[in-house]
Amino acid sequence: MATTLPLLTTDSAACCSPVTGGVLEPHEAERIARTFKALGDPTRVRLLSLIAASDGGEACICDLTDPVGLSQPTVSHHMKLLADAGLVTREQRGKWAYYAVVEEALTNAAAALRIA
Amino acid sequence: MATTLPLLTTDSAACCSPVTGGVLEPHEAERIARTFKALGDPTRVRLLSLIAASDGGEACICDLTDPVGLSQPTVSHHMKLLADAGLVTREQRGKWAYYAVVEEALTNAAAALRIA
Repeated sequence: MATTLPLLTTDSAACCSPVTGGVLEPHEAERIARTFKALGDPTRVRLLSLIAASDGGEACICDLTDPVGLSQPTVSHHMKLLADAGLVTREQRGKWAYYAVVEEALTNAAAALRIA
Repeated sequence: MATTLPLLTTDSAACCSPVTGGVLEPHEAERIARTFKALGDPTRVRLLSLIAASDGGEACICDLTDPVGLSQPTVSHHMKLLADAGLVTREQRGKWAYYAVVEEALTNAAAALRIA
């Protein structure tokens, strides 16, 4: 599953203070670290990849529990952390919550890692 | 300090299974999450930015404590976590340790965030 894709080159000039583009102010470092903290868990990384690989780039929570082998409350907790970090959106449809990856958030996180 | 720099486009094809390039295997998710966990702390994000912004892209630990306002043992602990994650190298020169950012590690982390 090592599909590779072109690195995004969207306009990131307006969005980010790269980690390596100068000494970060504490509030910038806080914001960047919050995103990476949400990404710093293997289950959440897998959930993101599952959602991104789903049809239409979105997934029902009912389809996420089996692949990661965790209960729905546990998956919901991880999804809440990802949503709080702005990495996914959540939409309730009837009984189920549907999640989609916020591509811009990943782009911004990647932009924060640009090298001087 | 919002200097912006071009997004790296080095050959990342060989290095990474992007989060969004397909469903990640558990071991790939573990590896990616380990890097992001190291980045998921504001002090470590600032330390990385301080080192990257230093002359020659390297910094003595003796120059890192003041800017982050922490003791040397605390900074050393953060630097060890960054080094263990492969994000910095460490070189002892006499009394002091010098750290340099591993650009490839940041590139790989950014590549793991590429969008499908």
